[in-house]
Amino acid sequence: MSAPGGSLLDPLGVTSDAEHLVGDDAWLRALVDAELALARALVAAGLAPQWMSGVCEAIADASSLDLAAITREARGGGNPVIPLVKHLAREAESVRSGASDHLHVGTTSQDILDTAAMLVATRSGKEVVEVLGRLGDTLAALAQEHRATAMAGRTLGQQATPTSFGLVAAGWLGAVTDARARLAGVVDSLPAQLGGAIGSQAVLTELARSRRPDAAADEVVATVTRAYAAELGLACPAQAWQTNRLPIVAAGDAFAAATEAVGRIALEVTVLARTEIAEVSERLGKGEGGSSAMPHKRNPVTAVLIVAAARRTPGLVATLHASMLAEDQRPSGAWHAEWEPLRELERLALTAAGAAASLATRLDVDAERMRANLELTDGLIFSEMATTVLAEALGKRAAFDLVEQSSREAAETRRPLRVVLSGRLSADGHDDMLRERVWDAFDPARNLGQANAIVAREVARHTGDDAAERQAKP
Amino acid sequence: MSAPGGSLLDPLGVTSDAEHLVGDDAWLRALVDAELALARALVAAGLAPQWMSGVCEAIADASSLDLAAITREARGGGNPVIPLVKHLAREAESVRSGASDHLHVGTTSQDILDTAAMLVATRSGKEVVEVLGRLGDTLAALAQEHRATAMAGRTLGQQATPTSFGLVAAGWLGAVTDARARLAGVVDSLPAQLGGAIGSQAVLTELARSRRPDAAADEVVATVTRAYAAELGLACPAQAWQTNRLPIVAAGDAFAAATEAVGRIALEVTVLARTEIAEVSERLGKGEGGSSAMPHKRNPVTAVLIVAAARRTPGLVATLHASMLAEDQRPSGAWHAEWEPLRELERLALTAAGAAASLATRLDVDAERMRANLELTDGLIFSEMATTVLAEALGKRAAFDLVEQSSREAAETRRPLRVVLSGRLSADGHDDMLRERVWDAFDPARNLGQANAIVAREVARHTGDDAAERQAKP
Amino acid sequence: MSAPGGSLLDPLGVTSDAEHLVGDDAWLRALVDAELALARALVAAGLAPQWMSGVCEAIADASSLDLAAITREARGGGNPVIPLVKHLAREAESVRSGASDHLHVGTTSQDILDTAAMLVATRSGKEVVEVLGRLGDTLAALAQEHRATAMAGRTLGQQATPTSFGLVAAGWLGAVTDARARLAGVVDSLPAQLGGAIGSQAVLTELARSRRPDAAADEVVATVTRAYAAELGLACPAQAWQTNRLPIVAAGDAFAAATEAVGRIALEVTVLARTEIAEVSERLGKGEGGSSAMPHKRNPVTAVLIVAAARRTPGLVATLHASMLAEDQRPSGAWHAEWEPLRELERLALTAAGAAASLATRLDVDAERMRANLELTDGLIFSEMATTVLAEALGKRAAFDLVEQSSREAAETRRPLRVVLSGRLSADGHDDMLRERVWDAFDPARNLGQANAIVAREVARHTGDDAAERQAKP
Amino acid sequence: MSAPGGSLLDPLGVTSDAEHLVGDDAWLRALVDAELALARALVAAGLAPQWMSGVCEAIADASSLDLAAITREARGGGNPVIPLVKHLAREAESVRSGASDHLHVGTTSQDILDTAAMLVATRSGKEVVEVLGRLGDTLAALAQEHRATAMAGRTLGQQATPTSFGLVAAGWLGAVTDARARLAGVVDSLPAQLGGAIGSQAVLTELARSRRPDAAADEVVATVTRAYAAELGLACPAQAWQTNRLPIVAAGDAFAAATEAVGRIALEVTVLARTEIAEVSERLGKGEGGSSAMPHKRNPVTAVLIVAAARRTPGLVATLHASMLAEDQRPSGAWHAEWEPLRELERLALTAAGAAASLATRLDVDAERMRANLELTDGLIFSEMATTVLAEALGKRAAFDLVEQSSREAAETRRPLRVVLSGRLSADGHDDMLRERVWDAFDPARNLGQANAIVAREVARHTGDDAAERQAKP
Repeated sequence: MSAPGGSLLDPLGVTSDAEHLVGDDAWLRALVDAELALARALVAAGLAPQWMSGVCEAIADASSLDLAAITREARGGGNPVIPLVKHLAREAESVRSGASDHLHVGTTSQDILDTAAMLVATRSGKEVVEVLGRLGDTLAALAQEHRATAMAGRTLGQQATPTSFGLVAAGWLGAVTDARARLAGVVDSLPAQLGGAIGSQAVLTELARSRRPDAAADEVVATVTRAYAAELGLACPAQAWQTNRLPIVAAGDAFAAATEAVGRIALEVTVLARTEIAEVSERLGKGEGGSSAMPHKRNPVTAVLIVAAARRTPGLVATLHASMLAEDQRPSGAWHAEWEPLRELERLALTAAGAAASLATRLDVDAERMRANLELTDGLIFSEMATTVLAEALGKRAAFDLVEQSSREAAETRRPLRVVLSGRLSADGHDDMLRERVWDAFDPARNLGQANAIVAREVARHTGDDAAERQAKP
Repeated sequence: MSAPGGSLLDPLGVTSDAEHLVGDDAWLRALVDAELALARALVAAGLAPQWMSGVCEAIADASSLDLAAITREARGGGNPVIPLVKHLAREAESVRSGASDHLHVGTTSQDILDTAAMLVATRSGKEVVEVLGRLGDTLAALAQEHRATAMAGRTLGQQATPTSFGLVAAGWLGAVTDARARLAGVVDSLPAQLGGAIGSQAVLTELARSRRPDAAADEVVATVTRAYAAELGLACPAQAWQTNRLPIVAAGDAFAAATEAVGRIALEVTVLARTEIAEVSERLGKGEGGSSAMPHKRNPVTAVLIVAAARRTPGLVATLHASMLAEDQRPSGAWHAEWEPLRELERLALTAAGAAASLATRLDVDAERMRANLELTDGLIFSEMATTVLAEALGKRAAFDLVEQSSREAAETRRPLRVVLSGRLSADGHDDMLRERVWDAFDPARNLGQANAIVAREVARHTGDDAAERQAKP
Repeated sequence: MSAPGGSLLDPLGVTSDAEHLVGDDAWLRALVDAELALARALVAAGLAPQWMSGVCEAIADASSLDLAAITREARGGGNPVIPLVKHLAREAESVRSGASDHLHVGTTSQDILDTAAMLVATRSGKEVVEVLGRLGDTLAALAQEHRATAMAGRTLGQQATPTSFGLVAAGWLGAVTDARARLAGVVDSLPAQLGGAIGSQAVLTELARSRRPDAAADEVVATVTRAYAAELGLACPAQAWQTNRLPIVAAGDAFAAATEAVGRIALEVTVLARTEIAEVSERLGKGEGGSSAMPHKRNPVTAVLIVAAARRTPGLVATLHASMLAEDQRPSGAWHAEWEPLRELERLALTAAGAAASLATRLDVDAERMRANLELTDGLIFSEMATTVLAEALGKRAAFDLVEQSSREAAETRRPLRVVLSGRLSADGHDDMLRERVWDAFDPARNLGQANAIVAREVARHTGDDAAERQAKP
Repeated sequence: MSAPGGSLLDPLGVTSDAEHLVGDDAWLRALVDAELALARALVAAGLAPQWMSGVCEAIADASSLDLAAITREARGGGNPVIPLVKHLAREAESVRSGASDHLHVGTTSQDILDTAAMLVATRSGKEVVEVLGRLGDTLAALAQEHRATAMAGRTLGQQATPTSFGLVAAGWLGAVTDARARLAGVVDSLPAQLGGAIGSQAVLTELARSRRPDAAADEVVATVTRAYAAELGLACPAQAWQTNRLPIVAAGDAFAAATEAVGRIALEVTVLARTEIAEVSERLGKGEGGSSAMPHKRNPVTAVLIVAAARRTPGLVATLHASMLAEDQRPSGAWHAEWEPLRELERLALTAAGAAASLATRLDVDAERMRANLELTDGLIFSEMATTVLAEALGKRAAFDLVEQSSREAAETRRPLRVVLSGRLSADGHDDMLRERVWDAFDPARNLGQANAIVAREVARHTGDDAAERQAKP
């Protein structure tokens, strides 16, 4: 939605590099890359002359094309490939007469546009994966640093049992690791498209018969497809997927999940930054977080904008899923309806992930306030652990009932739960040892369970993934 | 999504004026209009000096503002109003020192942004209404011209009973009239927003107390609100709707319905233009409808692109509905998530309606082919009318069974249904008069029912609405 | 989704009457009503014998039909009307031989099913309108009772400026009034459907010609349509809307908006009930709000379930909007895809509105805690009013800057803002009167602006609507 | 939506086993399985007595529980686990006193409900995978049988170039194979949930400390988690995913994609079955495909209902994606909003896949009609191949222009393209050999390109997957 330089209604986009990866320039580049990869694949398969490689090199720079004219002329055929081929042919002819004969051969607009879509998705997807990796680094550090920072765990908005901020951060980290792995997996498997008019590669087959009488036509065509995909770093599909839109849906879902995973972190920040909770805040730069009306305001503005981005993904994902219903060998609208929503999902993932990576480095964690909030309920938040300890002596049901009644009494009389419980246990004739053990249940550290183990596990998972991934790259 | 001049992935947008109505420039204009309307309303209510009217006039031209800078600076506060106020204040001060004291008074960013959203919606909505009116003119002419053009009615893809192209066009017209009325109704009732920080108009009330001690503060504030809304041509709300987002949802739904109503026409065109049906085609200009691979192709490219636009609205509508869940006195993300989807719904309605208005004038209707297709089933398509005629003599059940069996026999023996039926009736000893009456059932004209009455009704409804509406305008 | 008696996964549905209004029994009733209304309309127009009225009366009780069998047999034709007609015909014949000849005449399955859909929508819509009215009563009482109950207004999760709980409740009330008016308006205008096979009413026209040679066929058919609609209490459409699905979309949107309007109230309750805020709580009955693990838990369970209902509406609305793209004279899937989502939207509105009406009567409002929370920021929440007061003396910009700097100092030094401000004003040589006026800005009552006026306005709007509506009913 | 026995509005559900897999009974079974798996895992880890295994066995039959009561009581706590635990505890106590102490230990409602959701998803997912496998068998047979059945390929509704029905079926098969692999992959990796109140497993840790002083607590807890997951055949997660909802989204997406992949096949059937195309039809049983009004109608009713199912998935997927924004350690609504949409996505996949598997075995393919349709354009459909052949002699641009002009002339003069082309080539002085080669381009078989290779590839892919998968099962 944002033009280069940003849109008035997309504040997050302003500080993002998203447009370089998904804007019209990026798309034009990808379209040209697809066309030239095909020309080169024809050379590789002996269906075009060797000198065509030189021509490809000479015209490879998409920025020399007239984007505005191509955009304008796209109206006639309903997509930008038709005018692009004309512009590119003109350039090729200026390099060498007859060169245009070897451009856009055996293919159709959808091949080139779908392939370009996969290139743009791959390029922006890799960037999102990398940014999520950086975000993960910061979260891993936060998780380790705050391993012992006890805070209230909350369910349905109510203080539930204690947790640590380290565990909260490890939860965010785990989700980011999952979303990153999912996106990385999808991005690594996006297929090139090369089916020709209706998916049969009939023209390539005919050319193979006429130009490579020495070889089996099927083999020559397979070589073209493989070389084309390899040239672009895309997967080689079992067949054209012109009306099998799973790659689009898979990409859309993965970009959406990335945005949503960071959106959840941002949502939590907005909650924890609430004036009455105030456990976490977004460190603001000059001129940030202010209000036009209230001079004291310190709004968690980055977090809010990330949340907004994540609220926009579900509808866009729905549009892509709806395009799975693609009739004929190229559908009358379902295909065209995918272009902008997929681009928007990529854009949102890029801007939201980038903003989250920045936000994570600017989180102020107020351990003191966390501790103070833990005391707000005068011990009620320890009810589960108290029950657990008591159950060993009284049985589960009796323990639960005792703590439930004591909790109610504590709330009504505004006395600490541990005091009420202690009193009741005394009254019931229980020994000091039990009372002492129950007393211990009210120690936050006693309540952290597997928190540290989980932090360690998630940090390892983050690092390991990272390592594996770095290896995978050339 | 498309920048001025269009986006590579939005061919419809290229030939549309949508950007003038919903692009960043249009938004900036609306934001400035909102700010200045407030300043003028303050003057009207005696809360700002008279000379401020002149200042407003002097700085009313939004195009003199630095859009790029405002866009850039919007990041800090999370919306463009905060920097806009600074830029506008600077302009005001250059006109008259102290003037900025009377800008953005008693208001908050959301007031201005929401009001601007309503202005943009009103302006683009009125344009869509007008374009739908023009589309309706063409459809009304088509409906009247083709009143007697019989064609096959189809249900679940199967030829069902005859209809006329006039009735088909009247069906399109009726839907356009409905969508237009709905959008016109919504557009006429969109409210201004003026709640101040949390909806209480506390600052305005305070200013009324201090600057207009002569008057009841509540009345002064009410005057400000009314004058503000009136200045902008918007409705005056019962209270601020900062977290009651029905106006946004209503606008979004109405724009979506407009796009979808024309989308359905386009969808029907793609069906009727199928090579095997070929009853309707889109008259193509030079360079339109071609393919990069198949020289013979004449694609209904405008229809396809309109369908694509209409497939994108449901997801965007969903995002707006989700933002109804707005917590606090201004929510942390739900509000921000509305901006781009609403703009996109407006953009799609503008481009789709415009393209449909053009498409309707370029429809070639092949009455001969329609007649030929009517004969494809050798009379099966008249089965309902034959049953109706027979039921008068045989009873409904018996007539249905007879025609059902005859239909099966006709299909299997590849004989005309009327012949098979006639034979069976003879065999059963029915007289010639019945056979003759049944024979008449196979006349398409006999099958048109209320088609002409409906055409007349819809044309009147179209015209009447139109007249009423033109009156309503100043 | 919930069967009568409720579904395991729909706790809200258990205590709701929704199934009586939208379940299969309700639908069967509506389908029968539609069929019999048509038979009666035929009698009224002289196209069926008078005695048919008696037959209609005799078979009007849908509960005598075999719902399970009809459900089973619906598979063959793809909708339940086809078997229903057979079952109903059998009943009619058992009353009087030949009666079935006058059932399902001149109509098609879609007519009956669409009409039934509108009946179900009308009946459940009226119930939702009534329940929203009751909810409004409670909210109006809350708004009036808490007119002077000051509390913190919050934007982007941060304390912003003071408001009153009365104004908050008036905000909820206004949204409920709007959603109620919208739904009432839609419900009052839902059209009957009677187009016959492809919308031309060809069979009715033929019957009019043959059975009412005394009258103009068009007029007779118009009489049938009008009588049919009137019998059912539905609007009479300009033409059949078999592929113009605006009525479905309008109904779906209005039900969704109702759910979302109460969903927002519930969302606010979950926020205000947070342990750290604790300004509002849901009064829980025995066995409510508990946890399986934490004995102290008092979850706002009704509020949470209402929020969940409101999160499900956007996706369902999207599905209905997508069905606007309906090809042919009856589409191959778009129509069938509407049935369950529309029913689910009705069900959600019924259960959510009902639960909200109950929740509103069980809200505990803690005015003391609200007051305490107002003091949490040591005066920062009054920064806007302080600025307003100061601006009268210092000018707007200077006032804003002074309060902004003082706010920062107050936060850093943990001193009350009023003290810091006072000090700075003294240092700058301002007189006591200004300091005193600023001091007054920190009185919550001074900050309520139009809150009371708005409460009065919304209560009047609620009552007025109500009155008008009660009048409108017979 | 459909109760056991089906819903009136869900004709597809009637003949499906979906309810056995996703209905309330299935859910109750899964909830009990989860509770008992936990009890067994406690035994395995030495945290519960050995005799508890026997108790588990004794109470394992969920059908003895009072589903209606549990459903009713679910309202109080907001989910069915809270009453379930009580009912189950009662049963356990009746087997052995004290047994209930070892039920629902160290866990929370969400653990059990999420785990049950994963069980239901796994069980229904495996069924969908199997049904898709059967569908694939039929499609593979169709693809091979119709390898040489030439037909028109169509893009944007227009005849484009020839294809074979074998290739069309191979396209369907490929998409089914992909959707099946995706769903199988997801289903094999769905994780159990066991986090306790807020994800830290604090109670289990405490119990390990007190009951297994001999062992490291972390190790004991890890054993519990592993045993729990293993018992249920679910994956063991790195940590609880109570607010990391990727598993839900991944499952939802995969079910949706399965429905959409078969939905596309059905959509194509409705297109190819159009009266004017008539290349494929759905073989109808007695009482199927009829109309209540038109005796001749043979509607592709199964295909239509499958399309309808696939149009409902996008909105449901959107709802699940929206629930990724889950605040706190258990969110106030986002979690609860997932239950029904996920179940509906499973139900739709089960019914749509089952119906598609049936439909595929009932497809009548009319090769003769396909051939006749290929001739409709008098050779225009061969324009691409003619161009390809000519390009070898004339160059690409000149060939394209020549065929484009000839196509226009052919259409206008209603002469065969090959005749027009031949004439033009003669006039331009081209030799007979070229004319002959061009003439050959009009042979459909010459136009099939890689169709047969693709069929072979997809059949192998289908079979191979199948083999691998059967191996993978124990």
